[in-house]
Amino acid sequence: METLEGMSRTHHCGKISKDDTGKEVVVCGWVSRRRDHGGLIFVDLRDRSGLVQTVFAEDKMGEQAFPKAESLRSEYVIAVRGRVSLRSAETINPHMPTGEVEIYCEELRILNTAQTPPFYIQDNIDVDETLRLKYRYLDLRRPEMQKNIILRHRVTKIMRDYFDRNGFLEIETPMLTKSTPEGARDFLVPSRLNPGKFYALPQSPQIFKQILMLAGYEKYFQIVRCFRDEDLRADRQPEFTQLDIEMSFIDQEYILNTMENMVIELFDKAIASKVTGPFLRMTWQDAMDRFGSDKPDLRFGMELMDISEYVRGSEFKVFESVLKNGGQVKVINVEGYANIPRRELDGLVEYVKNYGAKGLAWIQYTDSEIKSPFKKFYSEETFNKIKEATGAKTGDLLLVVADKPLVVAQALGELRLEMGRRRNLIDPDKLSFLWVVNFPMFEYEEEEKRWKAMHHPFTAPCDEDVQYLMSDPGRVKAKAYDMVLNGTEIGGGSLRIYNSDLQEKVFEAIGLTPEQARAKFGFMLDAFKYGTPPHGGIAFGLDRLVMIMAKRKSIRDVIAFPKTQSASCLMTQAPSDVDNKQLRDLSIKTTVAKKHKED
Amino acid sequence: METLEGMSRTHHCGKISKDDTGKEVVVCGWVSRRRDHGGLIFVDLRDRSGLVQTVFAEDKMGEQAFPKAESLRSEYVIAVRGRVSLRSAETINPHMPTGEVEIYCEELRILNTAQTPPFYIQDNIDVDETLRLKYRYLDLRRPEMQKNIILRHRVTKIMRDYFDRNGFLEIETPMLTKSTPEGARDFLVPSRLNPGKFYALPQSPQIFKQILMLAGYEKYFQIVRCFRDEDLRADRQPEFTQLDIEMSFIDQEYILNTMENMVIELFDKAIASKVTGPFLRMTWQDAMDRFGSDKPDLRFGMELMDISEYVRGSEFKVFESVLKNGGQVKVINVEGYANIPRRELDGLVEYVKNYGAKGLAWIQYTDSEIKSPFKKFYSEETFNKIKEATGAKTGDLLLVVADKPLVVAQALGELRLEMGRRRNLIDPDKLSFLWVVNFPMFEYEEEEKRWKAMHHPFTAPCDEDVQYLMSDPGRVKAKAYDMVLNGTEIGGGSLRIYNSDLQEKVFEAIGLTPEQARAKFGFMLDAFKYGTPPHGGIAFGLDRLVMIMAKRKSIRDVIAFPKTQSASCLMTQAPSDVDNKQLRDLSIKTTVAKKHKED
Repeated sequence: METLEGMSRTHHCGKISKDDTGKEVVVCGWVSRRRDHGGLIFVDLRDRSGLVQTVFAEDKMGEQAFPKAESLRSEYVIAVRGRVSLRSAETINPHMPTGEVEIYCEELRILNTAQTPPFYIQDNIDVDETLRLKYRYLDLRRPEMQKNIILRHRVTKIMRDYFDRNGFLEIETPMLTKSTPEGARDFLVPSRLNPGKFYALPQSPQIFKQILMLAGYEKYFQIVRCFRDEDLRADRQPEFTQLDIEMSFIDQEYILNTMENMVIELFDKAIASKVTGPFLRMTWQDAMDRFGSDKPDLRFGMELMDISEYVRGSEFKVFESVLKNGGQVKVINVEGYANIPRRELDGLVEYVKNYGAKGLAWIQYTDSEIKSPFKKFYSEETFNKIKEATGAKTGDLLLVVADKPLVVAQALGELRLEMGRRRNLIDPDKLSFLWVVNFPMFEYEEEEKRWKAMHHPFTAPCDEDVQYLMSDPGRVKAKAYDMVLNGTEIGGGSLRIYNSDLQEKVFEAIGLTPEQARAKFGFMLDAFKYGTPPHGGIAFGLDRLVMIMAKRKSIRDVIAFPKTQSASCLMTQAPSDVDNKQLRDLSIKTTVAKKHKED
Repeated sequence: METLEGMSRTHHCGKISKDDTGKEVVVCGWVSRRRDHGGLIFVDLRDRSGLVQTVFAEDKMGEQAFPKAESLRSEYVIAVRGRVSLRSAETINPHMPTGEVEIYCEELRILNTAQTPPFYIQDNIDVDETLRLKYRYLDLRRPEMQKNIILRHRVTKIMRDYFDRNGFLEIETPMLTKSTPEGARDFLVPSRLNPGKFYALPQSPQIFKQILMLAGYEKYFQIVRCFRDEDLRADRQPEFTQLDIEMSFIDQEYILNTMENMVIELFDKAIASKVTGPFLRMTWQDAMDRFGSDKPDLRFGMELMDISEYVRGSEFKVFESVLKNGGQVKVINVEGYANIPRRELDGLVEYVKNYGAKGLAWIQYTDSEIKSPFKKFYSEETFNKIKEATGAKTGDLLLVVADKPLVVAQALGELRLEMGRRRNLIDPDKLSFLWVVNFPMFEYEEEEKRWKAMHHPFTAPCDEDVQYLMSDPGRVKAKAYDMVLNGTEIGGGSLRIYNSDLQEKVFEAIGLTPEQARAKFGFMLDAFKYGTPPHGGIAFGLDRLVMIMAKRKSIRDVIAFPKTQSASCLMTQAPSDVDNKQLRDLSIKTTVAKKHKED
């Protein structure tokens, strides 16, 4: 192996152009592809900036040096000193940004050799993700992964520039914090210096950012790691990154505008997407009523419509019992799909059951007839009225769900998305932003039989609803808002309670006794008595946002070293067994029997 | 309590100047000081930007509104709408940036009340730090603390701008990593999904940043939280922040220049200090010989000098036995302090004992005589030769330590610093940067009776010393470097080993069997076989750097929410007891008896 001594890189591979013709350059990188044409070896050399073709000619390099070029293999690390030449017209490669030039090597150094990688270092490989994660260092060499990681850097840089320019301070909050088991499960960290006690890794810097408002910092932001020890569904990571924001002396309008302008700037500067404001705003109730979702994908229509009034008072027991119990009958119109195959319809029935609906009905307005499982219970006039009311045309298919409002919303909302995908109604290049506002303050937790804060318990209830905090929590709306992009919640926040009496009332409403509230948040309740300004904030999920911007399907593609669904790192084999001495130092024991550990 | 509705802040308190005279403004903030002059109330209103005087006049506000102004107390949160007036000449306050103006209130809103704080919200308070940490939200309101936190924000912003501009990518590395018990003690995090296994919080992203080089990212940086579970000495925190850097295809010169230029830009932009490069470079051996420290404070002289040759071969057994056993006799010259009080001399003897020296001797060249505890063993000529050789003058004091070289260096190096402080030789406004280079590769760990990597085991040994790795590890120098500012190491790094054979040899030299090395770093050794570029890096301690820039004595003054020496947060009471259910979920038990927990 040779060193770079006395030879320093002058150019990046992907940046060499015909303007450099005739220049002597030094490039470094990895052998991406090597072709041998008897006495001439062509190597596509790859660095972070891209590829350039280097040429090793036996007659130029001499008999002594040429065998070194012949020894090159994929992923060898080399440095090449040579002269940039224009390629002849017939050898120009139009698919390569540097395709008009090549570098004739005058000096080659092999900085390192390489074993043959277990998969190709190129885009669009069809390789099991397990293998990609195990050899993450090779996966991360692939140009598409480099593009994602570079984009992620650009995104955070643009965010920081924006917030700095707008008077926000980035302030670091602790990672070793106090466990407050309200919300998700905490990751715990045993304390050695305080035996028997534990830190928790932060689920978010919520409390600290509010404390910073109270401490007079007025405009705070942080791009910060957060942790949730949840069972990992498809696109969750035990650690994730959040853009965290808090401001004082502002109203909701100010926060929404600040974030909207940030997003507009971000999409413009990072991916040259022109987004225009102001973003549509929709109340939570409207979003649920019209799209069956608190994060509606507005790239297509197919809104939910209520047909309860048309089907009420019939012999059809399904609808009748639903309507008598405060339920609804709602539909979506799948345009031009009246002739849906029966088999697909049956599949849709199964589909909605996954989302809590007991069943699915339909009305097919085909050219020749109206088909519906409840046809016999209603007159043709009723079907025509429904057709008119929903704006359906002949050839359209109405899918019908009857149930309690939340079930209808969920089942029909999911069905809408599914039909949007199946009917190709979703333009992948479209960006549909909106704000969902006026969230409910609480949601009822069936398992625990208590009201829980929908956002978190520091969210301010709407002034006019404060009176119902104890008597009718379900009615209380909150000063809370989410930013939604293409059906994904990318950010959410709220104005906060800044009065300790009101805060105590909210704790009471979610079933915390004053003692419990004090044990968990006592210092915060105390702190709030020393002059807390009105404040509010928001947090954006960075991983998901970058994923959408990079048009990837998995957040793992925009995280350098992600974990699997079992929260393991396949590259480093974390988590792992540790020495007993380490555990003794921490005054803990594992309850897993040794034989299990050695399985 | 009132709201801000319909009233939005137009100005920040500290930014109002006579240019705003006559304007109607809305300011918000905290009541910093309130004076009552019968019918006129003056309130210094404070926000993040500073203070401005607001005036509440009974004749302007009316009898209805005036009592509200009378009700104001310290730290109430208010909003004031009013008109900016020039103060009359005799009431101008030259000590206040806004001292030429005041705001006559036309509308007052009390946004929140406040209890009386336990200490004054002002600079230079003499309050026990425990109280400041408990009420951190109030401590952080003090202007000097706000200045520190704002400076910290500026520092990280300037760093990010610099590295971004120079082609570095900020890439996030995981917080839930694998425990590799080489180095400091790890904080562990039990894994719920992998019972019996543990993550470790990173002591640094060392392995990940090297993996990123291998993955082709070429220039990486990150401002990142790191964790070390050490017994906390004065200025350590269990979690701390690091500016972390790694680059490929570069030499040591490139890294040093990159960091030097960053520091020059940083000091200029953040605190308007003009630092000039290139920084002095000194080998580790020189630094130890001349200053008794690998992080010499060059703001003053008082270098260590070797007088072994002058005192050798006497009847004085102390020196003789030291010199026969490979030791040295060295001095520092405390100029003009020959008449040091005997009592202070005795104190210095105790002082050096703290640093491992068995004793301290001296030579006092007073006007009238030479005083020394070893005077009777040497001729006057010897004392004159020493005087000449050390450049001492009549009136100077030489302090003498005789011991093994490392002990002499440590004791005399510390004594030098102490005498520098006592004699006021250290200019607090001076910035003395230097690079210490060519560190030893290993140091001998007396307790464990083995060689240990001085920097870390990924550091590249100097090429010419590789041959001594096994035969004479103490002789091997490393391609390692530290940046030192005013006697503090602010950054340290090295070129890395990028050849897995050499890496395996270094693991062997520090006593890791191939099996142990494989268990800890196997994936890295494997990774290195797939084409690793030459690379190197450095890390800067952010907390310490900002502390020096802010001219503070404790890093706790530049961390928003620091922990105490027992690693506790006095504000939130972390770490804390947790529910047994939480521990059961994690398959761990605490070994601390319940009665202890309730102590």
